[in-house]
Amino acid sequence: MSKVLTFGEIMLRLSTSPGTHFSNIVSFQAHYGGAEANVAVNLANFGYDVAFASKVPDNALGLSVKRHLQKYGVNTKPLLLGGNRLGTYYLDSGVGERSSAVIYDRANSSFASVQEMEWDFEQLFENVDILHLSGITPALSEKLAEISLRLVKEAKKRDIKVSFDINFRSKLWNHDQASRTLAKILPYVDYCSAGKMDAIYLLGIPENQTEQDDTDYYYQKMHEKYNNIEVFYSTKREVHSATSNSLQGTLWKDGKTYVSKVHKLEPIIDRVGGGDAFSAGILHGLVTGADLNYTVSFASAYSGLKHTIYGDCNPFAIRDVENLMENGSAKINR
Amino acid sequence: MSKVLTFGEIMLRLSTSPGTHFSNIVSFQAHYGGAEANVAVNLANFGYDVAFASKVPDNALGLSVKRHLQKYGVNTKPLLLGGNRLGTYYLDSGVGERSSAVIYDRANSSFASVQEMEWDFEQLFENVDILHLSGITPALSEKLAEISLRLVKEAKKRDIKVSFDINFRSKLWNHDQASRTLAKILPYVDYCSAGKMDAIYLLGIPENQTEQDDTDYYYQKMHEKYNNIEVFYSTKREVHSATSNSLQGTLWKDGKTYVSKVHKLEPIIDRVGGGDAFSAGILHGLVTGADLNYTVSFASAYSGLKHTIYGDCNPFAIRDVENLMENGSAKINR
Amino acid sequence: MSKVLTFGEIMLRLSTSPGTHFSNIVSFQAHYGGAEANVAVNLANFGYDVAFASKVPDNALGLSVKRHLQKYGVNTKPLLLGGNRLGTYYLDSGVGERSSAVIYDRANSSFASVQEMEWDFEQLFENVDILHLSGITPALSEKLAEISLRLVKEAKKRDIKVSFDINFRSKLWNHDQASRTLAKILPYVDYCSAGKMDAIYLLGIPENQTEQDDTDYYYQKMHEKYNNIEVFYSTKREVHSATSNSLQGTLWKDGKTYVSKVHKLEPIIDRVGGGDAFSAGILHGLVTGADLNYTVSFASAYSGLKHTIYGDCNPFAIRDVENLMENGSAKINR
Amino acid sequence: MSKVLTFGEIMLRLSTSPGTHFSNIVSFQAHYGGAEANVAVNLANFGYDVAFASKVPDNALGLSVKRHLQKYGVNTKPLLLGGNRLGTYYLDSGVGERSSAVIYDRANSSFASVQEMEWDFEQLFENVDILHLSGITPALSEKLAEISLRLVKEAKKRDIKVSFDINFRSKLWNHDQASRTLAKILPYVDYCSAGKMDAIYLLGIPENQTEQDDTDYYYQKMHEKYNNIEVFYSTKREVHSATSNSLQGTLWKDGKTYVSKVHKLEPIIDRVGGGDAFSAGILHGLVTGADLNYTVSFASAYSGLKHTIYGDCNPFAIRDVENLMENGSAKINR
Amino acid sequence: MSKVLTFGEIMLRLSTSPGTHFSNIVSFQAHYGGAEANVAVNLANFGYDVAFASKVPDNALGLSVKRHLQKYGVNTKPLLLGGNRLGTYYLDSGVGERSSAVIYDRANSSFASVQEMEWDFEQLFENVDILHLSGITPALSEKLAEISLRLVKEAKKRDIKVSFDINFRSKLWNHDQASRTLAKILPYVDYCSAGKMDAIYLLGIPENQTEQDDTDYYYQKMHEKYNNIEVFYSTKREVHSATSNSLQGTLWKDGKTYVSKVHKLEPIIDRVGGGDAFSAGILHGLVTGADLNYTVSFASAYSGLKHTIYGDCNPFAIRDVENLMENGSAKINR
Amino acid sequence: MSKVLTFGEIMLRLSTSPGTHFSNIVSFQAHYGGAEANVAVNLANFGYDVAFASKVPDNALGLSVKRHLQKYGVNTKPLLLGGNRLGTYYLDSGVGERSSAVIYDRANSSFASVQEMEWDFEQLFENVDILHLSGITPALSEKLAEISLRLVKEAKKRDIKVSFDINFRSKLWNHDQASRTLAKILPYVDYCSAGKMDAIYLLGIPENQTEQDDTDYYYQKMHEKYNNIEVFYSTKREVHSATSNSLQGTLWKDGKTYVSKVHKLEPIIDRVGGGDAFSAGILHGLVTGADLNYTVSFASAYSGLKHTIYGDCNPFAIRDVENLMENGSAKINR
Repeated sequence: MSKVLTFGEIMLRLSTSPGTHFSNIVSFQAHYGGAEANVAVNLANFGYDVAFASKVPDNALGLSVKRHLQKYGVNTKPLLLGGNRLGTYYLDSGVGERSSAVIYDRANSSFASVQEMEWDFEQLFENVDILHLSGITPALSEKLAEISLRLVKEAKKRDIKVSFDINFRSKLWNHDQASRTLAKILPYVDYCSAGKMDAIYLLGIPENQTEQDDTDYYYQKMHEKYNNIEVFYSTKREVHSATSNSLQGTLWKDGKTYVSKVHKLEPIIDRVGGGDAFSAGILHGLVTGADLNYTVSFASAYSGLKHTIYGDCNPFAIRDVENLMENGSAKINR
Repeated sequence: MSKVLTFGEIMLRLSTSPGTHFSNIVSFQAHYGGAEANVAVNLANFGYDVAFASKVPDNALGLSVKRHLQKYGVNTKPLLLGGNRLGTYYLDSGVGERSSAVIYDRANSSFASVQEMEWDFEQLFENVDILHLSGITPALSEKLAEISLRLVKEAKKRDIKVSFDINFRSKLWNHDQASRTLAKILPYVDYCSAGKMDAIYLLGIPENQTEQDDTDYYYQKMHEKYNNIEVFYSTKREVHSATSNSLQGTLWKDGKTYVSKVHKLEPIIDRVGGGDAFSAGILHGLVTGADLNYTVSFASAYSGLKHTIYGDCNPFAIRDVENLMENGSAKINR
Repeated sequence: MSKVLTFGEIMLRLSTSPGTHFSNIVSFQAHYGGAEANVAVNLANFGYDVAFASKVPDNALGLSVKRHLQKYGVNTKPLLLGGNRLGTYYLDSGVGERSSAVIYDRANSSFASVQEMEWDFEQLFENVDILHLSGITPALSEKLAEISLRLVKEAKKRDIKVSFDINFRSKLWNHDQASRTLAKILPYVDYCSAGKMDAIYLLGIPENQTEQDDTDYYYQKMHEKYNNIEVFYSTKREVHSATSNSLQGTLWKDGKTYVSKVHKLEPIIDRVGGGDAFSAGILHGLVTGADLNYTVSFASAYSGLKHTIYGDCNPFAIRDVENLMENGSAKINR
Repeated sequence: MSKVLTFGEIMLRLSTSPGTHFSNIVSFQAHYGGAEANVAVNLANFGYDVAFASKVPDNALGLSVKRHLQKYGVNTKPLLLGGNRLGTYYLDSGVGERSSAVIYDRANSSFASVQEMEWDFEQLFENVDILHLSGITPALSEKLAEISLRLVKEAKKRDIKVSFDINFRSKLWNHDQASRTLAKILPYVDYCSAGKMDAIYLLGIPENQTEQDDTDYYYQKMHEKYNNIEVFYSTKREVHSATSNSLQGTLWKDGKTYVSKVHKLEPIIDRVGGGDAFSAGILHGLVTGADLNYTVSFASAYSGLKHTIYGDCNPFAIRDVENLMENGSAKINR
Repeated sequence: MSKVLTFGEIMLRLSTSPGTHFSNIVSFQAHYGGAEANVAVNLANFGYDVAFASKVPDNALGLSVKRHLQKYGVNTKPLLLGGNRLGTYYLDSGVGERSSAVIYDRANSSFASVQEMEWDFEQLFENVDILHLSGITPALSEKLAEISLRLVKEAKKRDIKVSFDINFRSKLWNHDQASRTLAKILPYVDYCSAGKMDAIYLLGIPENQTEQDDTDYYYQKMHEKYNNIEVFYSTKREVHSATSNSLQGTLWKDGKTYVSKVHKLEPIIDRVGGGDAFSAGILHGLVTGADLNYTVSFASAYSGLKHTIYGDCNPFAIRDVENLMENGSAKINR
Repeated sequence: MSKVLTFGEIMLRLSTSPGTHFSNIVSFQAHYGGAEANVAVNLANFGYDVAFASKVPDNALGLSVKRHLQKYGVNTKPLLLGGNRLGTYYLDSGVGERSSAVIYDRANSSFASVQEMEWDFEQLFENVDILHLSGITPALSEKLAEISLRLVKEAKKRDIKVSFDINFRSKLWNHDQASRTLAKILPYVDYCSAGKMDAIYLLGIPENQTEQDDTDYYYQKMHEKYNNIEVFYSTKREVHSATSNSLQGTLWKDGKTYVSKVHKLEPIIDRVGGGDAFSAGILHGLVTGADLNYTVSFASAYSGLKHTIYGDCNPFAIRDVENLMENGSAKINR
């Protein structure tokens, strides 16, 4: 199977139990996650040979991150040990009308403090078919924006496909900063996850005044701007409550938009990582050359499964997704 | 900010975990609550200077109650230590079609056994702006009915606003007993939480045969009977199942009824204390002289938040309510 | 009250917590259950004198099974201690779109390995009014199919009513094997739980091409084939998701079908044992000679209650069911 | 095997987890226990036909008590349902230097409020060989002291052996009250658990000024006073800390004292019920006519096992005790 | 009672459960603590009017800290809300031969980043009798060293007693840095917790070559150097294993050393905060003018109690300590 | 670093929480382990390239095993997926006088049912330096005894060191069966873990009648019998109670015995896997050519660490062991 490299930050997530206020908890649930790390784990669960490049402190927390990744078969050779601290974030789990809330405590982490290119390009890219990163990485520091740019350039030099999820985080940077950096990176990208808001606020696409369907319109316009990008994809999420959403996947290629069925996600156990699961599902479809309707359906079903599990990463394998696609939730198999 | 005094019983609540039968539990979840104590905690969370007057045993349980109240900033100087036992109740948490059930074990508690006025009026009422109590307190004993009456009279003497939540509990007294006592207390009340059933069965209002809206009718009639009461309020709850309700707040003043939007509460984590949260929200609106539409909306949203948290009291602050009122549950802020 | 005997396998069930993947669990929830054991517990909770005949290993697990049954008042004299192991199964608890999954590890259990009739008929049947077993028992081994047949014959000899739940399990046997065995057992049965699929695939009833209602048609046809069977019953379940179902009970007697209201089961805590609860409810109605509309309603409500509790057996008593039938989930009683 | 009847109160015990202060707990561990109920469970675990007579409220708590007793095979026919409440006590679990502490909340329980003899003597005593009760029962009320006396008298009339554990509780009565009541009961007792403090403060035995061993002296003197009592027994406990004790059993019969080895109990999981386990062990030895050295060793080992388990009752069977007596704790059997 | 002010950092502590490796945990136990915050809580538990001055972020974590302190009655008016993050540390709980380990993640916290004196002296010191701080505060930053010095000077100006616990932390500063700062602060101190290592490495006392007892020698020499310091105190801890220690308190005043009995601490639930408990106990003795033998015994017993409870602070009250001093761990009081 | 291959069974272990009886548990703690799998994990934690060859079912349990091994970096390429079931065992955790007990439920597992050599020798042994297996593997079936013998022969052919831990399990085979099989395997072994009981009962060494030290005598005699075995090693365990042991490691090479200090293991969290940890520590010393005193001390310390952690495998790394060897448990590093 294909070999994949992802590059980004992985954090410790400390979350409350549903129905318990921060000031009343006696313990925090602990998970490890980050956009690129999640994609790495998810693709490893599909059987790919995936390496995750990052940096975590050389202590018990760093070791825990390493074991978390290894558990799912992710290659941790490019996971450097060193620096000051592990990035952390707190998740206050929402219920019904009360939405989830995140408190970031990720500044000055070992990864965000990287001051030079500490990874060797030759080793990193050996036999790699796809490089995946997200907009979170260049948002972390000037230096990481620079390294991200070098990575996508080096990947292109080696004919490696570049997958990029825009993943805008307003707590990390603003629209202007993001736009400037994205304008440098996107010319090297092959597959891009971007939605309507990204198109308008980060890529400068004018709002849709036509009668064309929004999805078609924005994908088309983004492609016109960056015609190096072969495939666009994203999820449309209708939020009924913190624990009930509808989710539909869309994918654009060669001027045509493919959409999945609408998944009713209720109750939602944990939506963090739902987008990363969708990205992993799309990449799986693309590298296997699967039918694009199947691809978008597979990715959506896989994203749906993520919402039924605590934690940022999606422990399910291809057969679990196919089982859901075929049988739905109709019965206990016994 | 205003200074508030509440007076009533606080109990230990022992509840089962959802999905577990009483006879199969290995532990009970422990919370502390009572109508007036909950209002005290809720108003303290809004920043008010709130004191709670009651009596609990001078042992580890009494100390736990005291610390529970202090945690949220409630002034516990008028919380007396002494007597025999802490009132207790068991909550069997309902799910779906199966409703929650309560087993009271509150008889002979330190508070219910109070035999004389053990609090000093001067100290109790020093600088107080509002006195809040509920119909549960006079229901506990003849003596407490007498003390409740003295308290509202003393409050009125001092130009303190009196807030009273009828809160009828059929396991504590019957309609006749309640009616007789309420008839003595209500003439001293300024703000009163009462609904249609209270109007008919406790205040002797004839059933609505007119074409007038029920809410308007009963509020109007109650006001006609007790025109000292400036404000009436209550929630209307439609129960779809133990874990799914719709809730709407209403408030009446100067001949006009104000209603909030209908909140869809699903899943309900814990509905106990939902009414007390609504009362606290209304009092907050009234003492700040807020717009009455805002007031009823704020109180309803605050009551809605309560349903997302285990325990009788509502740990959220004003900014959490306003955040819900502005943004709904639409997204994770990150 | 009547005396009941049930015969079958009881297993240890190891289940994951909702929202947690098998590979990430740190503990399994432990419950004990099996179709006939569940019916025994349920009927004991109604106050019947119920004995459960089976075999479990003579070790701490066997003792735990015995205590589980005794807890609810089931007579464990015919629960033999011996053999190699306790049958086990793993339950991966589904959520929303993701359905539950079962991994059986029941082969070679003490019960499935029974090689001869180890119970004494005279003792087993002393004063018994009803014998209940399900299609799982004869599916476990040739020997158990033979013993099942002897049991129903011996029961009939003694004028004991025979209740039989077809309970087809595709992981234990196939349609052909089941059909052959059922053809021998059903002539001795008085009350039978069977649905459309059972009718078509196991009893050889042709698919309904008529305009008659499916329920009526299949019950009628099954009765035509086995006119010794007085009563047929089963539940119709519409599966919206793993945690949301609609359930309706049906019962046929003397050419007439009786149906319960449709119960909305949401959220479902645990649906395992829902069918056994329905069977117990039906048997209760039949032995008390209750009205058949009441009977099917009682059984459906009792089955609904089961879905609100973890574990295979239904801890509720008659008054809990009647409480649900009268009051619904409308309010907390306090 | 012999048939046994015990009579007394059973309570809900709510305990903290070790290392957690009352004011910081989020849940209480729940167990059910009481001196006579524990002896009943323990003897049932040895295979005896044991009935427990008491009274608990007719609600979910009473049902839970009933199921707790049934689980171990105790006959609950004489467990009446009715009255106001279930007696409760809180246990603050000690660690090391900090001792455990108990808060009783047992006043006005259904059992303590019994006002007349609600059990039928003929039914109670049918085929009974031994009646066991403890000094806690007559301490609960004048009425229960009277009923206790009638029970031992009726037992003697029927040639039933009477076993009585003095079990003095200073929170229930004082030395004078206890002495007066014991003086009436002890003339009907055959087997009595009493120690040095009981002898001096409750039975009026002068302190040992002789050179005789204390154990011999007090047993001898008590026997001189009540020569109807055939057997005396008790444990000597040296308390090194809340979690480390040494325990030795002693038994006196026919002028001779038998002692067990000293058991080192460390760490102690839960010492509540350790005395009841010893009593059950002694009764087992006496009714089987076992060697008295064996009897006191068996009872001590069984009491030791109790200290390794949470809760008031001792779930182990005869073979577990014999296993400990033969092999000690030396190795894992695998 | 006296009024106390403490000043320092409070952190979130995330700890593993005993017996679980960092890389295998699914949740972290959460507690809040810090040397000066712990002393504040402990003194509040004795009934003192204690205020804690510090700074925490204005988010759910800061609110949780505030509620933690309020729970025990600590006045949080001087607890500022603002800045970037809450200091955090991870505690890997040791067992037996394996010692506990701490990973600090406290850099850049809201408190450590304080850049100017944000508290008003007049308000801070109003009616204060004692100011307590530890060497951790000046170790956090140059600025906090400066503020610490100003605080002790301002306190002396107002005739407020200054209590200072040297509390050297090698992960925060080295011997040289600490010595220089201490040399400025100690001239303003009245009560000082310092041991042999502090004397040698931080205060420049030559090692004891005399025949004098070490404790006497170092206290004497430190007093010679800083004769403004009236009272020295510290604990001597013999570590048998991570879960078994012996602890003895010592106190020096007017040329005389007072020692407590040796407490055997086994098993140790959590030793963090044991020194802060000792400090609080000593301060209680000093401000009440208690006998110095009593004072050192009280402080040691109180420190011993801390080791029996999870978390940094000591929830026990004066009567709990006196109970331990009088009765030891000998029995359950019931 | 060296490359290691281990071969054996890995099982799911279901254990009770300390202090809870089997019949009262609501959940089982889940761990995965087996002698050879544990050695594999332990050596991977030291940084070796370790592969584990075995067979587990192709379901969620097999996947969980695979992820368990991967987590620690074990290469799972030779872990085959297939067959019927995962071997299981129940562990009743002992406390104090009550020893732990194991119930095996491992018969008919995927591994034990292997009927032919399903692994390819060339792939298995590629670059391997050490093969490790234990006497449990040949005890599982005739076929596995045969495969074990082939493996050691093939290893010797390739100049691979063979490490063998006798690990006699009386529940799997008897002395005669074991002796016969060991007699075939031991001639191919280089490093062997065997103790006095093994020497006498399995290797036919006459009991020591000489004045020689037992350890020296038996190692010497075993070496005389199998002079191909270069190194013998084992632990001597003195069992004070289930939760308190003393443990000393011994190692023999070239006629000389090396012993570690005696480790006091108290409290023991979990002793399962303690021997496997010792083996891993010895192998680490041998392959690095470390000093033999260091080697036996390292292995003993590493085994000691295992006893402080739940589960069969030892999560600690070389630096943790060295930290314990240097510092003991004396203090918290902060």
